[in-house]
Formats: sequence, C-alpha cells, structure tokens
Amino acid sequence: MDETNYPEVEGGGSLILAWQIRNKRVLVVAAGRILNVLNADAKVTVVCPREGLNAEVAYRIEQGQVEYFDRKFEPSDLDNVDMVLTAVDDPEASSQIWKLCKERKIAANIADVPPECDFYFGSVHRDGPLQIMVSTNGKGPRFANIVRRSIAEQLPANTGEAITKIGKLRQMLRKVAPGIEEGPKRMAWMIKVSDAYSLEDLCAMNEEDMQTLLRFYAPDKVPRFGCLKAMEGELDAFDGSFGFCVGWG
Amino acid sequence: MDETNYPEVEGGGSLILAWQIRNKRVLVVAAGRILNVLNADAKVTVVCPREGLNAEVAYRIEQGQVEYFDRKFEPSDLDNVDMVLTAVDDPEASSQIWKLCKERKIAANIADVPPECDFYFGSVHRDGPLQIMVSTNGKGPRFANIVRRSIAEQLPANTGEAITKIGKLRQMLRKVAPGIEEGPKRMAWMIKVSDAYSLEDLCAMNEEDMQTLLRFYAPDKVPRFGCLKAMEGELDAFDGSFGFCVGWG
Repeated sequence: MDETNYPEVEGGGSLILAWQIRNKRVLVVAAGRILNVLNADAKVTVVCPREGLNAEVAYRIEQGQVEYFDRKFEPSDLDNVDMVLTAVDDPEASSQIWKLCKERKIAANIADVPPECDFYFGSVHRDGPLQIMVSTNGKGPRFANIVRRSIAEQLPANTGEAITKIGKLRQMLRKVAPGIEEGPKRMAWMIKVSDAYSLEDLCAMNEEDMQTLLRFYAPDKVPRFGCLKAMEGELDAFDGSFGFCVGWG
Repeated sequence: MDETNYPEVEGGGSLILAWQIRNKRVLVVAAGRILNVLNADAKVTVVCPREGLNAEVAYRIEQGQVEYFDRKFEPSDLDNVDMVLTAVDDPEASSQIWKLCKERKIAANIADVPPECDFYFGSVHRDGPLQIMVSTNGKGPRFANIVRRSIAEQLPANTGEAITKIGKLRQMLRKVAPGIEEGPKRMAWMIKVSDAYSLEDLCAMNEEDMQTLLRFYAPDKVPRFGCLKAMEGELDAFDGSFGFCVGWG
C-alpha cells in the first residue's frame, strides 16, 4: 500500500466509543443521563435527597429501575462503582466528586463542567441493535439533535431490523454450506452480498429473497437485487443462463 | 409531565460516548485503532517488535506521530497509561494484558475478544467538528459501514462547516444584543433559529443570510429561510409588513 494512502490525522475530535456497561455499577448523583445507562443494561444507583429529584429520575426510582438512596452523596458511594454521572447544582460539591473519581480511577461526567468530564454524551438514534450517535464535540448540541433527526428520517424504516436479518442470512448460509473449512468462503460471500446491495436493498430483503439468494452461494457471485426479485417464483424452471437477468452485482 | 411520556428502557444497547483523550496516554500493543486515538489528540505509545508491525502503524511511527518501543509488552508499560488497545495474535498474552489493565483500572480493548473489552469501536463519519458513529452492537460491523456511508452520502456536503457557522451566528448575535441580562433571550432566539430551519437551510446559510437574519432578532421571531433569501437586497426598503413574505418559521 502506498504510504500516501493513509488518512492524515485530523485532531480536535473525540474518541467515539460504544461503552460496555452491562451489569456494571453506575452511580448517578442527582439527575443525569439515566436512560442512556439503563438502555445499556447498567446497574444504576441514584443518590440524591428526595426533594432534589427531577421528575424523570423520580419516575424511574418508583418503577424500581434503579437503586435509590434518599440522602446527599458520601465518598463511600464510590466503592465498587465503575462510572459516575453527576448533575448537581453545587459546583464545589461536584468538583469534589470529580477529584475523588480521579483518585480512584473511576470514569466520570460532571454535567456542564467540560474539564471535569472523561466523556461527553451526544445525540443518539436507537433502532434495535443499531445505535447512531451524533457529536459536535461540544460546539452545537442542538445542531447535533437536528442532524440526528435528519439521519433518522432518511434511513429506511426497518434499518435496525435489517441487522437481525443479515444475522439470519449468515445462519442460513451455515446450513447451506456447513463446515469450518468453508468459513473463509462463507465470509467472502457475505462480504460480496454486503457490497452488492444498497442499504435500501438490504432493508427490503425478505425471507423468500434470502432463500433465493442462498441458491447462488456456490458460484461466489451475487445476483443484483432486482434480478433476485425477478427470479422469484421462476427459479424452479431456472436454466442457469440468466437470460432474463440484467447481471451480477 | 405525564409519567407515561418517559421513554421505556430498551436494554441491549451500548453507552455511546465521546471519550475525551486529548493529551491522555494511550498504549497500543501491536496494531489497533491508532488513527481513531490520534484524531482525538491522544499521546500514543506503540509497543511491538518491529517485525510484527503492520504497515500503517509502521508509517505512523516513521512520521513521528507516536512514541515507539521496538520490543514485546512489559507490565511496566501500563504505568501512567489511561487507555490500552491491543491487537496481538497471542490470545494468552493479550488475556494477560487485559487482567493487568483491570487490576489497574485502565480502560482496555482487546481486539477480537469481546468479553475483554470495556468498549467497542464503531464506524465513524468525520466532518470537521462533527462526528457520527454507527454501532450495530457487534451484530454487523460491515453493515455499520454501509449505514455510515449512506449517512455520509445523504448529509448536506457542508454539514460540518455549518456547526462552525452557527457558532459564528451566536457570536454575531452577542454583538447585536450584548449583555449578560440578554443571555436567556439570545439563547431562546438561537433555539428558535434551530427549530425553524431545516438541516439543509442551516447548511446553505451564508454570511449575508446571517446578517439579514440578525435584523430580525428583536421580534423574537424567525423569518422562513425562503423569505430570508427573498428579502436580501430588498431589506433596506423593507416596510416591516412582509407583504412579499410567506410567513414566519
């Protein structure tokens, strides 16, 4: 590979990550992005005097979605905690929490105090297994929402579902072409499928299309999506010539 | 607010975060997502015998973009390190690194070993200050690329630039309507602008449009983008009636 082909470093960004916090302990002091962490299966503990709770946090406590302590933060709350989110109106108190987190190497986000954040949140679109996050690196949170909404509107409606479907196609393929030694060939063919079809095609694919498609595993070629549709119902009489088909993807 | 309005928890996701690693120390053992961390201004150290380097990492070492040690990993490499990425062909060695990282509470990603990852990477679109990350939660990395490409194609070409432009509009507004006491009014108006215009409008806005727009700060209303364009050049003769204008956004 020609060295000049490597992308240039473009600083000023964030490292955008999909953090894994399933069953990890997240401490939320007062309010905070509680739904974000619940959606990622974290074990959430809220510490905040009841009169200071915001309505959503109060609702989630009532629903039993989080563990709750009706009192102010204490340093021992940080024991065995993996992540801390705070949104406290007292800058001194929250700065203190930040310092304790850093001493203990706990990742933390002190809301509205950028220098006291290991990470920022962005605007997230969720569609089943699909998550899309828009960040403006703090330069326009409202604009991030606009971009996120625009993306959500333009994606095919069943994009999240398509991920599950492709997983199913992979499983079906393993039945059609079993064996470990077939692995690399299967993988190459799946890549071929991904490359040949547009996002719209993949999202529109139904079970019958997948069955038809799998009949073309052997040649290691992928018929165009339009051809696939045209073939359906005619495949039993298929003569292998593709006289009726525009071509391969 | 009606309690039923709170979104239901939808588990199985990740916590997608914009991690701040400017000037943080990231240790890369062998290969890894080196460009991702460089783009976020991390201080990167690579540890790997020279014969094991992949071409891109070798290139970045040669360019002086990272610090480099031509040897195998040693536990002391973890001293003062904030994050570790490894992509080593030796599962036992990488499992050992993972354990050491956990003892020291260092966030780590052991490539291709999902249970030994505090975080996963996704497919990232970058456009200046804008970063968009697509994650399929490990269920279809190639599909994530397809979605990311589709998003990049459909976004207006100058979306990243629009973030800078809106920042500029905010600055210009502060000159038109200075004073701390004016702050909440300025913010409300900026929100009005964000709500009234489509992403396409915001991306198409030029400096003249912003000047015109700012003349409408006082009424706390925002003319539709089409009106803004229609007014330009005619505004000096503007009679305040908007007889020629379809309406407010």
